[in-house]
Amino acid sequence: MLPRRRQREGEDMAGEKKCLAELVSLVQGELAGDPEVLIGGVADFDSAIEGEITFVADMKHGLRLDECKASAIIVPLAVTEISVPAIRVKNPYLAVARIHSLFVDEPFAAAGIDARAVVGPDCHVPAEVSIGPLVYLGSRVRLGQRVTLHPGVVLYDDVTIGDDVVLYANVTVGRGCQIGNRVIIHSGAVIGSDGFGYATDENGRHVKRPQVGMVQIDDDVEIGANTCIDRATFGKTWIKRGSKIDNLVQLGHNVVIGEDSLLVAQVGMAGSTTTGSNVVLGGQVGLAGHIHLGDRVMIAAKSGVHNNIEPGSIVAGIPAIPHKNWLRASAAYAKLPEMVREMRELKRKVAELSQAMTQGDGGNFGNNE
Amino acid sequence: MLPRRRQREGEDMAGEKKCLAELVSLVQGELAGDPEVLIGGVADFDSAIEGEITFVADMKHGLRLDECKASAIIVPLAVTEISVPAIRVKNPYLAVARIHSLFVDEPFAAAGIDARAVVGPDCHVPAEVSIGPLVYLGSRVRLGQRVTLHPGVVLYDDVTIGDDVVLYANVTVGRGCQIGNRVIIHSGAVIGSDGFGYATDENGRHVKRPQVGMVQIDDDVEIGANTCIDRATFGKTWIKRGSKIDNLVQLGHNVVIGEDSLLVAQVGMAGSTTTGSNVVLGGQVGLAGHIHLGDRVMIAAKSGVHNNIEPGSIVAGIPAIPHKNWLRASAAYAKLPEMVREMRELKRKVAELSQAMTQGDGGNFGNNE
Amino acid sequence: MLPRRRQREGEDMAGEKKCLAELVSLVQGELAGDPEVLIGGVADFDSAIEGEITFVADMKHGLRLDECKASAIIVPLAVTEISVPAIRVKNPYLAVARIHSLFVDEPFAAAGIDARAVVGPDCHVPAEVSIGPLVYLGSRVRLGQRVTLHPGVVLYDDVTIGDDVVLYANVTVGRGCQIGNRVIIHSGAVIGSDGFGYATDENGRHVKRPQVGMVQIDDDVEIGANTCIDRATFGKTWIKRGSKIDNLVQLGHNVVIGEDSLLVAQVGMAGSTTTGSNVVLGGQVGLAGHIHLGDRVMIAAKSGVHNNIEPGSIVAGIPAIPHKNWLRASAAYAKLPEMVREMRELKRKVAELSQAMTQGDGGNFGNNE
Repeated sequence: MLPRRRQREGEDMAGEKKCLAELVSLVQGELAGDPEVLIGGVADFDSAIEGEITFVADMKHGLRLDECKASAIIVPLAVTEISVPAIRVKNPYLAVARIHSLFVDEPFAAAGIDARAVVGPDCHVPAEVSIGPLVYLGSRVRLGQRVTLHPGVVLYDDVTIGDDVVLYANVTVGRGCQIGNRVIIHSGAVIGSDGFGYATDENGRHVKRPQVGMVQIDDDVEIGANTCIDRATFGKTWIKRGSKIDNLVQLGHNVVIGEDSLLVAQVGMAGSTTTGSNVVLGGQVGLAGHIHLGDRVMIAAKSGVHNNIEPGSIVAGIPAIPHKNWLRASAAYAKLPEMVREMRELKRKVAELSQAMTQGDGGNFGNNE
Repeated sequence: MLPRRRQREGEDMAGEKKCLAELVSLVQGELAGDPEVLIGGVADFDSAIEGEITFVADMKHGLRLDECKASAIIVPLAVTEISVPAIRVKNPYLAVARIHSLFVDEPFAAAGIDARAVVGPDCHVPAEVSIGPLVYLGSRVRLGQRVTLHPGVVLYDDVTIGDDVVLYANVTVGRGCQIGNRVIIHSGAVIGSDGFGYATDENGRHVKRPQVGMVQIDDDVEIGANTCIDRATFGKTWIKRGSKIDNLVQLGHNVVIGEDSLLVAQVGMAGSTTTGSNVVLGGQVGLAGHIHLGDRVMIAAKSGVHNNIEPGSIVAGIPAIPHKNWLRASAAYAKLPEMVREMRELKRKVAELSQAMTQGDGGNFGNNE
Repeated sequence: MLPRRRQREGEDMAGEKKCLAELVSLVQGELAGDPEVLIGGVADFDSAIEGEITFVADMKHGLRLDECKASAIIVPLAVTEISVPAIRVKNPYLAVARIHSLFVDEPFAAAGIDARAVVGPDCHVPAEVSIGPLVYLGSRVRLGQRVTLHPGVVLYDDVTIGDDVVLYANVTVGRGCQIGNRVIIHSGAVIGSDGFGYATDENGRHVKRPQVGMVQIDDDVEIGANTCIDRATFGKTWIKRGSKIDNLVQLGHNVVIGEDSLLVAQVGMAGSTTTGSNVVLGGQVGLAGHIHLGDRVMIAAKSGVHNNIEPGSIVAGIPAIPHKNWLRASAAYAKLPEMVREMRELKRKVAELSQAMTQGDGGNFGNNE
């Protein structure tokens, strides 16, 4: 019903085979061995068989290279002795990503609009789309070319979607939100729910503040399953080009994520917090509202950040401190009970010394014990 | 298809204009300037233009008041010198919430039951509702007046919904749960899933305990996207009047949330934990099961609470301690490596002093170094 | 429409009554009192009435046993003086689970395939199933006997489901995933979304790595609402027999959960991390990638684990340390500000002592103060 991507193991082999030289060229690597070897797919080291190419990402696996059953292997530049034909590259993971995509990505095949989808008035839907059954489009929704909407997707009024976008099952995009090109959003994600904004009256009751902004998601962003991105109170919540957001992440109203950033699962960012580009937030990190992280900031998993962070900083802890300090502080933390004992002992000794000196019996101090 | 709320920026202006005096009266503020100025909408400070009212919440923005391009401004009482017509109020956010709602809230317009919705037997559905396509109602569901159910909503058997309730796309409400009036539940939230309850047998296997209670959500509660509220094992899980719960929050079986409480995103509460009223839980807070938080307790983001907390307390940390203590302890934590060094140094000095005294050469101590 | 389980309070009584002796036999307990008492259902201590059986799990409630209004009670072996007929057992929760299930579990009643469900080509669906409206099955989906699919469930191509499985509303199972027998998955859970895998190029741009593995869920697993389990990059993400996973949990690609483990709500596990059997992870625990937890490991709520953990260990903290150490360290943490003061005081005293000795006035030290 919906267009198909060869994504299951074992299916790669059905596709067209490529010779090793072609793959070397694709990833600008160095060839070692027979350039004519034919490759039909990619597999990991333990399961790869003849006809496939596999990879090792670092030298830690070096000793096992002779166990390789694949027809070729991608290795780091540092690996020189290899028993099978190989592609030597600076960044094996990058080479694998490109070669693997070559085998598994299929051209878009438009399935049209399923009769059991619901399309509201005044929508703009090109012919080259795949809209599954049980999809709902409100009024004035605009879709780009080659958009795939899986079952259960709900696009509210005035949503705009770019080209080559894939929205998986049960994704919701709220009214007026704008999504760029080549965006992937996984099942259950909610884009454009209301921000958590209230004013509290004299009786302690919370009065809802209208949330009239939207969410803008730029090109090449990927968003994980069941992640929530709130619309702005005013203006926009904004995910910039190339950023990748994992599952179950919470982004509050008016958050801005800079380009090419990575947000690992279960990160939470409070309202109006912004980041520069190439930021990395580890799993379960929490950021307070109205702060800014500079470019290339890295935050260790589970950290809590309450203040602005300078570009390039690596921080950890709750509250977050420089990562190097945190490593030492957390090591010391484990020894706190010992420190408490030592402190007590020291106090006792100092009190004894002090008393001994006061009594003028320094010379006989040893006998006091 | 579904009723429409003017929620996009720029749309406000289309509505009826109000004179400043009317707005002053609505929020019981003090007027400064021309009471006849006509206002058509609300915008934030940076984007507000002529015909709109904007606001500043505190004096930190005071210096920029002369850059205001709006036709009027809401300011704190402390602000006295203002270049544009103004409303002076004790609580600017509260005034903004009320004035903004005046402009953007539209009266409910019933769209009826879409032909592509599924309504089970013996349901009670008034004429004045808006039930979108792809909605599912089980048996004996009872809806109040002016209920809006967005596409993908699933209401299981015997669910009861009050008046003026809005359930966004793909919300699930489990069998027998009861929802009050003016409740808003955002997309993907799951109300009434089974509690996490097992008994473990002699072989370490987990035997499911039936979860036969329900979830009761009282008036004026708002629940965020993809939040999960488990049904009670016996009895009810209960969210009391006026509480606001953010996205991706987890509330276990038999949790009780007191009135007018705020739970920020990604909070997790284990089974049978209860709170008083006006409690505030910061983002990613975790509460153990079977504890109670008194009225007005505030818990800092990312804290973990294992014990009952007295009314009015402010706590932080894992495990949580009084917030003031936590501020000092966490500052000291960052300096732990330094403390370790100092402790080592002190031990060395005390050992030297002790040895010197034992040897009776107190007077020549300096020469030992 | 969908098959019905007696899950609401008060409904138990409608079922067949059992005599106490039969219940004693079911749980292999010791009878105290009249074996002929008829029981029609289970309720908790405070709400149980005549005709029901209730329970106390430990002696803490012992003093209130005379307030029991139920017709019988399940108690721990240690309880000897009881005013009502009783079943004495080693593990009251286990006995309650079994007896309660006896009353509330109903035999599966097949409702067939609703006309408003969408079933793709080449699916294998037995006659004995209940597939609700608005369900979507892709191509070549295989269902076992007595499967229940609630509204909004989406099964992608090539999914396999075992016997007696229940998938609640809006559950998504991605292409090629395999689910065993007696599995329960709660609303909104996403099984088989892409793993979070990218390679970063020389310009800091993240290139998606194809995620071609699947998720395998073995028999008797239960998965909570809005939980996300990513498919493997290669191979499989694997949840083994009998494990129970709470709501809003995140499991990365290639995670393996051993048998009979418990993962409490909001746990996050990074890619390729594996566990032995009978592991318990507390709420909001975070695990780094590529580590292993041995059998029977217990991790306290909110902990962060970066390293392998030996079988049987109990750990806590960020980073996690042995739980006993953590208890002492966290107690010391709260007293850090005091330690800082004491340290300062000690340093001052030692400096004075040192100076006094250097000056040779040890005997008069007391006068310096």
